[in-house]
Amino acid sequence: MPATPAWPPASTPRLFVDQPLGPDATILLDGPAAHYLTGVMRLKPGAPVKLFDDVSGEWLAEVRDVAKRSVTLGISAHLRPREAVPDLWLLAAPIKKGRIDWVAEKSCELGVARLMPVLTQRTIVDRLNLERLRAHMIEAAEQCGRTALPELHEPIKLDAALRDWPAGRALIFADENGGAPFIEAVKPGPAAILIGPEGGFTAEERAAIRALPQAVGVSLGPRILRADTAMAAAVSLWMAAAGDWGAPSAQ
Amino acid sequence: MPATPAWPPASTPRLFVDQPLGPDATILLDGPAAHYLTGVMRLKPGAPVKLFDDVSGEWLAEVRDVAKRSVTLGISAHLRPREAVPDLWLLAAPIKKGRIDWVAEKSCELGVARLMPVLTQRTIVDRLNLERLRAHMIEAAEQCGRTALPELHEPIKLDAALRDWPAGRALIFADENGGAPFIEAVKPGPAAILIGPEGGFTAEERAAIRALPQAVGVSLGPRILRADTAMAAAVSLWMAAAGDWGAPSAQ
Repeated sequence: MPATPAWPPASTPRLFVDQPLGPDATILLDGPAAHYLTGVMRLKPGAPVKLFDDVSGEWLAEVRDVAKRSVTLGISAHLRPREAVPDLWLLAAPIKKGRIDWVAEKSCELGVARLMPVLTQRTIVDRLNLERLRAHMIEAAEQCGRTALPELHEPIKLDAALRDWPAGRALIFADENGGAPFIEAVKPGPAAILIGPEGGFTAEERAAIRALPQAVGVSLGPRILRADTAMAAAVSLWMAAAGDWGAPSAQ
Repeated sequence: MPATPAWPPASTPRLFVDQPLGPDATILLDGPAAHYLTGVMRLKPGAPVKLFDDVSGEWLAEVRDVAKRSVTLGISAHLRPREAVPDLWLLAAPIKKGRIDWVAEKSCELGVARLMPVLTQRTIVDRLNLERLRAHMIEAAEQCGRTALPELHEPIKLDAALRDWPAGRALIFADENGGAPFIEAVKPGPAAILIGPEGGFTAEERAAIRALPQAVGVSLGPRILRADTAMAAAVSLWMAAAGDWGAPSAQ
């Protein structure tokens, strides 16, 4: 059992800050972050906080000063460099609000590098609140320990995504007509998982996906999975087979 | 590409009914089921409906008569026998309402045979609405095509579950101190996945789990997963490695 460091304690708040961090920097937080630290967590001067900026990794800071609507922190140590994120994109057709929020949260927790909303012929929800999705990803990154945020790409039409698909990146999709067992079909290297809308892809879209040389049709079993379930299942399987979940053969 | 049967159409409503089905049976539905078929789907006499009873499989029925608060259906054909469900139990500590509902839904979609809520030392939500969980599982079974409902077990204390643990059933748990890569650690055969509460297991509970000869500690990667995420990831990986998601080596 590895020894757990005594400081900072496991309960230390952990926050993403949208400003560059570095040794001896002083950070002024206001708005919801300040309210969280002082109103919710009731931190006093001297209390530890972990901060990460999506650039330089994770830093230990301590509360210096608490004002009515702001809090000042001083950085005391570099805890970890920014992590290397497995090179997996998730292309997901927007689904209704609660479930797409969940997809944003889970894509971050499970370790996706980039989330790309794709607009398909049967996509019903085509106005996406990207700020809300980003807030869900940030909250997930804070709690799951990521030091790198997933990149949130602008929504893109499926046909445009397929037209410019990178030569060296596998495009993994759940093939309704069968498909190979996931674990055996997936190889190490850059990849993307494509999840369709609730109504599925049209026949034309399916043909265009299959025509791509980089396409890899896989099976997610005999039951019909909702889009959010298929996303969690496929990303988990990829992480175990080709990502950083510890399969020695893939590393 | 296998030919898709022309009848019944893919849009045919599919319902679980809590009464035995058989050839030529006449089924009277009232309450929410009748409202769904006539008020929401606006079915008329002659319209097809798929029914399953968790005993005899799936049947094709047709609407015979629509009354103000009820609908009568006549069974016309046996579509499928009751499926063989992979022998996987999910032991999950209750978590807050929205997330435990999601766990019930996903455990059904992903193919779990039995859901057992386990009460741990750090379980905060200890009053569980089993009827609500069962309703979520039924709705998931209707949409994912299952002909067998997951069994919903009464909540059980973790120490009692461990004391009477079946000799031949692996108990798979995410080991915070490392653990083997999931896909390599899992063998075919009866299994259960144990997911702890949001606060994790206590040191005493972890020792008791590890002391069980059937315990298999696995890794779910370097990020800290929420309970609902860990559940979806672990069940997906088991299904791919040892269940019915098409890994030929496991079948």
